[in-house]
Amino acid sequence: MKVSQAVEWGLHCAILLAQVPGDSPLRREVLARHYDLPEAYLSKTLQAMTRAGVLQATPGPRGGYRLAGPAERLTALEVVEAVEGTAEPFTCQEIRQRGLAAATPEECKRPCTVNSLMFQAHQAWRETLRTVTIADLVSRVPHSIRARNRRLLAG
Amino acid sequence: MKVSQAVEWGLHCAILLAQVPGDSPLRREVLARHYDLPEAYLSKTLQAMTRAGVLQATPGPRGGYRLAGPAERLTALEVVEAVEGTAEPFTCQEIRQRGLAAATPEECKRPCTVNSLMFQAHQAWRETLRTVTIADLVSRVPHSIRARNRRLLAG
Repeated sequence: MKVSQAVEWGLHCAILLAQVPGDSPLRREVLARHYDLPEAYLSKTLQAMTRAGVLQATPGPRGGYRLAGPAERLTALEVVEAVEGTAEPFTCQEIRQRGLAAATPEECKRPCTVNSLMFQAHQAWRETLRTVTIADLVSRVPHSIRARNRRLLAG
Repeated sequence: MKVSQAVEWGLHCAILLAQVPGDSPLRREVLARHYDLPEAYLSKTLQAMTRAGVLQATPGPRGGYRLAGPAERLTALEVVEAVEGTAEPFTCQEIRQRGLAAATPEECKRPCTVNSLMFQAHQAWRETLRTVTIADLVSRVPHSIRARNRRLLAG
């Protein structure tokens, strides 16, 4: 099981965009330079976040990306799923319905116990990410870093 | 993010082994036939479960696999991690320490807020799987299937 590296980028970019004074858009190259990320790859992440409605993209020379809504209402889950997708990590192939003791359709009215458990585990994972907002994450960044970001982003 | 298909196999095999009367070992081909699984691939899963101490392998013509301990003490997490490994799905590349606003070593005494959050989410996932035993999962299998298994496994 692996969470893609772009999730780290997406969360950090959202955290940074939440710190931009006056909510002005940040250009892609500014975001890439801020964290020393490969711009072409970051571009895909930012586009995915835009498609998912997490970011708002403004075209043009003074354009860029901003959060689509207030950081207080944007959950970490929305950012993570914007980047990683919303597919269930566990896909049940219903092996209970195969082989010598194959369950009958009658016996499969309730979901497979293995499938239910894996689904529950994923829900617990999602729930942890749903209860934290990007504003919460900003508040956990050390003051000195936030002050440095303010200076850089205002310039 | 993707949980490997073998996790379904591993959990179902553990659930089945917990239902074997008299705790006798089941041969690999019996397990494969029971769920109509490809024996060569299943073999890797059973070996991983044995290495992790979840199963006990008995060699020889009457040998096979049994649970290494009571199903009441074997958690779903142990089975899942035996098959899937115990690596964290999210690996932090510490991008906070890179780029224009790079955090100093002083500012990194506490773990990165993104890393901590993803770690917490994974712990919630693990916790869900840790609180359920293989015996619990057996008890959730429909009675009619368990009766069929008993007949098949006694034969």
